[in-house]
Amino acid sequence: MNFHTRKWIKPEDLNPNGTLFGGRLLEWIDEEAALYAIIQLENPRTVTKFMSEINFKSSAKKGDIIEIGIDTVKFGNSSLTLCCEVRNKMTREVIISIEKIIMVSLGEDGKPQKHGKIEKEFVKDRLAK
Amino acid sequence: MNFHTRKWIKPEDLNPNGTLFGGRLLEWIDEEAALYAIIQLENPRTVTKFMSEINFKSSAKKGDIIEIGIDTVKFGNSSLTLCCEVRNKMTREVIISIEKIIMVSLGEDGKPQKHGKIEKEFVKDRLAK
Amino acid sequence: MNFHTRKWIKPEDLNPNGTLFGGRLLEWIDEEAALYAIIQLENPRTVTKFMSEINFKSSAKKGDIIEIGIDTVKFGNSSLTLCCEVRNKMTREVIISIEKIIMVSLGEDGKPQKHGKIEKEFVKDRLAK
Amino acid sequence: MNFHTRKWIKPEDLNPNGTLFGGRLLEWIDEEAALYAIIQLENPRTVTKFMSEINFKSSAKKGDIIEIGIDTVKFGNSSLTLCCEVRNKMTREVIISIEKIIMVSLGEDGKPQKHGKIEKEFVKDRLAK
Amino acid sequence: MNFHTRKWIKPEDLNPNGTLFGGRLLEWIDEEAALYAIIQLENPRTVTKFMSEINFKSSAKKGDIIEIGIDTVKFGNSSLTLCCEVRNKMTREVIISIEKIIMVSLGEDGKPQKHGKIEKEFVKDRLAK
Amino acid sequence: MNFHTRKWIKPEDLNPNGTLFGGRLLEWIDEEAALYAIIQLENPRTVTKFMSEINFKSSAKKGDIIEIGIDTVKFGNSSLTLCCEVRNKMTREVIISIEKIIMVSLGEDGKPQKHGKIEKEFVKDRLAK
Repeated sequence: MNFHTRKWIKPEDLNPNGTLFGGRLLEWIDEEAALYAIIQLENPRTVTKFMSEINFKSSAKKGDIIEIGIDTVKFGNSSLTLCCEVRNKMTREVIISIEKIIMVSLGEDGKPQKHGKIEKEFVKDRLAK
Repeated sequence: MNFHTRKWIKPEDLNPNGTLFGGRLLEWIDEEAALYAIIQLENPRTVTKFMSEINFKSSAKKGDIIEIGIDTVKFGNSSLTLCCEVRNKMTREVIISIEKIIMVSLGEDGKPQKHGKIEKEFVKDRLAK
Repeated sequence: MNFHTRKWIKPEDLNPNGTLFGGRLLEWIDEEAALYAIIQLENPRTVTKFMSEINFKSSAKKGDIIEIGIDTVKFGNSSLTLCCEVRNKMTREVIISIEKIIMVSLGEDGKPQKHGKIEKEFVKDRLAK
Repeated sequence: MNFHTRKWIKPEDLNPNGTLFGGRLLEWIDEEAALYAIIQLENPRTVTKFMSEINFKSSAKKGDIIEIGIDTVKFGNSSLTLCCEVRNKMTREVIISIEKIIMVSLGEDGKPQKHGKIEKEFVKDRLAK
Repeated sequence: MNFHTRKWIKPEDLNPNGTLFGGRLLEWIDEEAALYAIIQLENPRTVTKFMSEINFKSSAKKGDIIEIGIDTVKFGNSSLTLCCEVRNKMTREVIISIEKIIMVSLGEDGKPQKHGKIEKEFVKDRLAK
Repeated sequence: MNFHTRKWIKPEDLNPNGTLFGGRLLEWIDEEAALYAIIQLENPRTVTKFMSEINFKSSAKKGDIIEIGIDTVKFGNSSLTLCCEVRNKMTREVIISIEKIIMVSLGEDGKPQKHGKIEKEFVKDRLAK
C-alpha cells in the first residue's frame, strides 16, 4: 500500500474534546478514495457506492501528521474496490482501516458504465506511451 | 426514528461532478451521532468507535434539503449503539443508511468508562425532575 | 415551536474569546429559516428579506449542543413570516430569539411570486396524497 | 462612514440559488462589528449583544466585490453602539443596512465592564502619543 | 498605501502551534490582490501571475486584528503590478510584505488582454462621471 | 522530488472565474512545506520564514487532481530550505513552482533553535533503529 496524501491536524479539524474529529477523517478518506479511483479509471464521474466496516483504532491530536494509504483490491466491470489505512506519519500507529471501499464509474447519464480497466496502472507509464 | 438535523445542500458541499460530496455527508452523520450520544449519555467525552457497512443508496444535488435520523439500538456498559438513516426531506428517498454506529463514553483518562444509562431518555423529562 | 437542527460547538465555531462566534450562529439561523421556508412554500427560490431585532441572550461554549427552533408566524402572498429561537439542548437556556424573519418566494425572473400557501403543511401529509 | 473590509464573492459564499448566502453576509458583518469595537474599546473581550432590524435590500452574485462600512453611533458605559452598511463596491448599490449593533465590553469575569471611552479614536493618534 | 480589509484571527486560522497559519495569510493576500486588481482594471477575469519574495517578518496570535494594504506599482499592457503589506492593526508591526504581485487581465478566451488603464482610479470618480 | 499529497479540485476551491483560486493553492503548499519540515526536523514548532518568487505557470479547473511535490534543498543550523512543485496529476503539466521555501525550527521560547539534522531521513529508517 502506498501512502500519498498527508494532513497536518489543525484546530479546525478537532472535535470539542480536542482530538481529531472522526467526521473530518471520513471526509478526507472519501476524497482520497475518489481521486485514486478517478486516476485508475480515467473517468472523473466516479462515485463512492459502499464502505465496509470502519474501525476507529486510535485517534490523533492537534499537530499530528497523518498519512492516508489506498490500494486496489479488485477491478469489476463498472466498479473498483479499494482498501484504505490511515496512520500516524511519525509513529506508524494505525488510526483507521477500511477493508472495502467500492467506487463506481458512471456514464454521462449517471448510470454505471464499463470502465474497461483490469489492472493498476501508473500515470508515468501512460504518459510514456 | 426521529429526524432532527436538516441540511441545505450548498455549492461548498458538492463534489466536482455537482452532486453531494460523500465525505461531507459522512462528516454530518458523525457529528449527529456524536451529539445524539452525548445527549443520551450525558458525557461530552463520547467518541465514535465503529461504523458498520455504509450503503450510498442515492445522491442529492444542489438545493436539496436532507434530514438525518438517528435511533438507539442498544445500551452497553460504556458504549451506545446507534443506527442512522439520511433521507431527502421532500421525497423521503433514502440517501444513506448505517445499521450500527458504536459510540463509546470515555473517562477523564481517555479510557472507556461506564455510563450507567440503560434506556433512551428525553431532556424534557430530565429537566422536569 | 419544533426544534429540529442541532449543532455541536466545535473549535472552528468559536470567536477568539472562546465562546460561540455570533456570526456563525446567524449563519446557522439563516440556513434553517431558508430550508424551513423552502419546505413550506415548495419553492427552492426563497430568500431572506428581513429580520427583526436580534437579542443575544446568552452564549455557548465549546462542546455545547444547541438546537434551532423555527415556527410559522404568518403566510403572506409571496412571503412567509417565521420566528426563531435557539437554545442550549441540555439546559434549555435561550441563546438567541428573533420574532420575525420574513422569507420571500421568488419566480424564475427573480421577482416576488405568489406561493399560494395559506397554512403550515407536513411533508408526510403531502406524500400521503 | 468608512468602508474598510472587502470581500470577493466566491462559489463557497453562494446559496443554492447562486446568489450570496445571507448567512455568510451576517457572519461577515458580525466579524467586522466585533473587530471595529475591539479597536475602539481596546478590549478584546467585546461581544455582540443586540442587532436592530436587518433589511436585505439587494443581493450580490458570484464575482461581485462588496465592502462593509461600520460607524459609531454612541458610546455607553460598557457598550458601544454601531451602525453598518454593506454595499457593492463597483456600483455602490446598498445590499444590507443595520441601524444599531450594540457591542458590550466584558471584564475577565465575563460581565459588562466600563470601558472608559467617550469618542472615536484613531490608532495612529494612539501610537503617536 | 491604503489598508482596507481587516481580519480577526479566529481559532480556525491558527496552525497547530497556536499562531496564525501562514497558508491562511497567503490566501487572504491573494484574495485582496485579486479584488484590488479587478476594481482597478474593471475586468473580473483578472488572475495572479507572479509573486516576488515573501518575508514572514512576524506572526500573529488568536484575537489579533490585522489589516491588509495593497498599492499600485505599475500599469502594464495587460498586467497590473501591486505591492502588499500586512500589519497588526493595533501595534502597526509588519507581519508580511511582498514587493511585487503581478495580476493579469484575461479576455474571454482566457488569454492576456489589454486593459487600457494607465493610472489608479477611484470608484467615486467613475460614478461621478 | 517525491509527490505525496493530492487534492481534488472541488467547487469550494474555485475563484469566481471558475478556475483554482490561487490563494487556496498557496494555503495547500504552505501546509505541505510545514509538515515536510516537521517530519524532517522532528520538531513540531517549525514555521515558514521565507518563500522565493512564485510563478503561476498554469491553472487547474474543477475536477482536476493535482499533486504537491516537496524536496530538500539545504539543511542550515536552525533552518531547512525546501523547493516545491505542484502539477496536474493526469497530465504532469506544472501549475506552480517555488525554488526556495525556508522553514525555521523554533525552541519553546519561540526563537530559532538548532535542529541538529544534516541530511534527509526516512521515517521507516528511524523506526527500524
